[in-house]
Amino acid sequence: MTDSSASDSLGTLAILWHGDHLALLDQRLLPDDEIWLTYNDAQGVADAIRDMVVRGAPAIGITAAYGVVLAAQRAGRDADWKMAVGDAIDRLAASRPTAVNLFWALERMRTRLQTCASAADAVASLTGEAEAIHAEDVAANRLMGQHALGIMPDSPFAVLTHCNTGALATGGYGTALGVVRSLWRAGRLTRVYADETRPWLQGSRLTAWELQQEGIPVTLNADSAAAQILRRGEVRWVIVGADRITANGDVANKIGTYSLAVLARHHGVKFMVVAPSSTVDMALQSGADIPIEERDGSEVRAVRGVSVAPDGVSVYNPVFDVTPADLIDAIVTEKGVIERPSLEAMRAVF
Amino acid sequence: MTDSSASDSLGTLAILWHGDHLALLDQRLLPDDEIWLTYNDAQGVADAIRDMVVRGAPAIGITAAYGVVLAAQRAGRDADWKMAVGDAIDRLAASRPTAVNLFWALERMRTRLQTCASAADAVASLTGEAEAIHAEDVAANRLMGQHALGIMPDSPFAVLTHCNTGALATGGYGTALGVVRSLWRAGRLTRVYADETRPWLQGSRLTAWELQQEGIPVTLNADSAAAQILRRGEVRWVIVGADRITANGDVANKIGTYSLAVLARHHGVKFMVVAPSSTVDMALQSGADIPIEERDGSEVRAVRGVSVAPDGVSVYNPVFDVTPADLIDAIVTEKGVIERPSLEAMRAVF
Repeated sequence: MTDSSASDSLGTLAILWHGDHLALLDQRLLPDDEIWLTYNDAQGVADAIRDMVVRGAPAIGITAAYGVVLAAQRAGRDADWKMAVGDAIDRLAASRPTAVNLFWALERMRTRLQTCASAADAVASLTGEAEAIHAEDVAANRLMGQHALGIMPDSPFAVLTHCNTGALATGGYGTALGVVRSLWRAGRLTRVYADETRPWLQGSRLTAWELQQEGIPVTLNADSAAAQILRRGEVRWVIVGADRITANGDVANKIGTYSLAVLARHHGVKFMVVAPSSTVDMALQSGADIPIEERDGSEVRAVRGVSVAPDGVSVYNPVFDVTPADLIDAIVTEKGVIERPSLEAMRAVF
Repeated sequence: MTDSSASDSLGTLAILWHGDHLALLDQRLLPDDEIWLTYNDAQGVADAIRDMVVRGAPAIGITAAYGVVLAAQRAGRDADWKMAVGDAIDRLAASRPTAVNLFWALERMRTRLQTCASAADAVASLTGEAEAIHAEDVAANRLMGQHALGIMPDSPFAVLTHCNTGALATGGYGTALGVVRSLWRAGRLTRVYADETRPWLQGSRLTAWELQQEGIPVTLNADSAAAQILRRGEVRWVIVGADRITANGDVANKIGTYSLAVLARHHGVKFMVVAPSSTVDMALQSGADIPIEERDGSEVRAVRGVSVAPDGVSVYNPVFDVTPADLIDAIVTEKGVIERPSLEAMRAVF
């Protein structure tokens, strides 16, 4: 595969900033329909994050940052423009609880907001900050791909991944799926096994679609078949993203990640977490401190609107879980690789 | 809960023999629609097994036995009646490969067939054998429930189960779900967590429905949330069924069972396999010898006819896996409990 253009090499982008509005590729409808929704105000962007038009920790952070810009544009030259933008930041922060990139991006925007002397200045300044957050994310993804190659085998092997961590989940290129892209371009990848990732099916709907579009060999599997795949020996690394990484190296990520980490260790398969440093939350000591989002049981009782369970049956639907650091072989950020993560190893970098 | 009638206490039956035809509750349509299909010949029954109108290892064996009776009825007094019935047995045996109860039941029917001197005699004799297979299965399920109680805690606790092993999967009462019924009636069960069991969703469509009908507290979860549930400490036993058990105690069962066994061991949760002795295949040394059925990728690419993945994407869809004996704390059959199964322990019973 050749990188014929910068856009090609990043994968299918899902967040497009148009100066006076934000366009998001509606990820609830993929792969059947490619529908773009446009947003002109922060509340619409907050709703889009809550309703999962856009998902993926880095993508949520970038989207929220553009939402702050829209708030500044709408506030115009009102006397209370700064308070209005601050309120918008609060509303955006309440959209989803687990991924820390959201709060990190909004804190950057809030800090920048404080430096703005006038409403006229604010729009340009906040736009610059949001675009920087977006561009830095893409650059971080490319760097993580390079770092990860350094600790993996030279001879081609298969990997297994969970959820979607590609261009759709980030500003472009992807975190764990960015590493997959880097492996493929280096000729060191035979195949990607993609967990379908119930209940939201990010693996079948998004990851399989992204990889298929680039011609990277992908095989889809039910989540519960992962153990059977790992037993066969073809997969050398399980590679996943993260929604929050705590000071001791614990990782919150899509439900099922913890299960995979236990299974990988049982089978002697290596386990890698790939995430930009904006995912690291050194203020939290361990995974026990991370708020874990539970979503409505209807996500399990139905699939794309089709009922698959008795009406009203009780459902436990945590959409993230916490993988303890001792099950993780490597955390890769744009700052480098942390092997066998621990408080000491994390403190040395962050 | 009181056993107000024998029928009530067995759960919802899915196989009804009417003397000259067989009625099957179409399990592909549950829980939305309760549609009964009727069969008058063996080929129809073989198709019903292959297409999963009926599923569950013991239920498949019972259904196939009635299919042999239908073949004898259709053969009538033709000169080659015995050959016709023998051919029907072969066709029924080709319907699905993994569950051994199918072959076990058909061998019983074939052996009985050999003793029949005349076509007139055959129908009555084969009917008696099929009804015995059916009745013995129900009796075995009740006995297994009793045996299992003997090795579990007296104070109430939660269990987690996978796939459907209830009345719908057997002649009635159930294997693993029979143990659940016994625990509930003994006041020793707080709650059942039911894996939804992709790709066919036996857990959400069938197990949740069966338990809800009896008022047994059930909570549904995505398969990949099981590790998170086991970590919380509420679940003391994982209880599953089996499609084939080999001489060394290895167990083939629904895809995802092996994953659960690894996760249970990791969390110090006990792991029980419940199956009638007809599931035991002492002719096979270990799980490596069991033929594992792979079904079409469309089962993963779509859910109840609704596409959830890109067209034509490659799928790995093994519908069973093998759990090694050393991850199993107890195998329960109607002959008793085998703790820490091994070749020696299995040989002492079978």
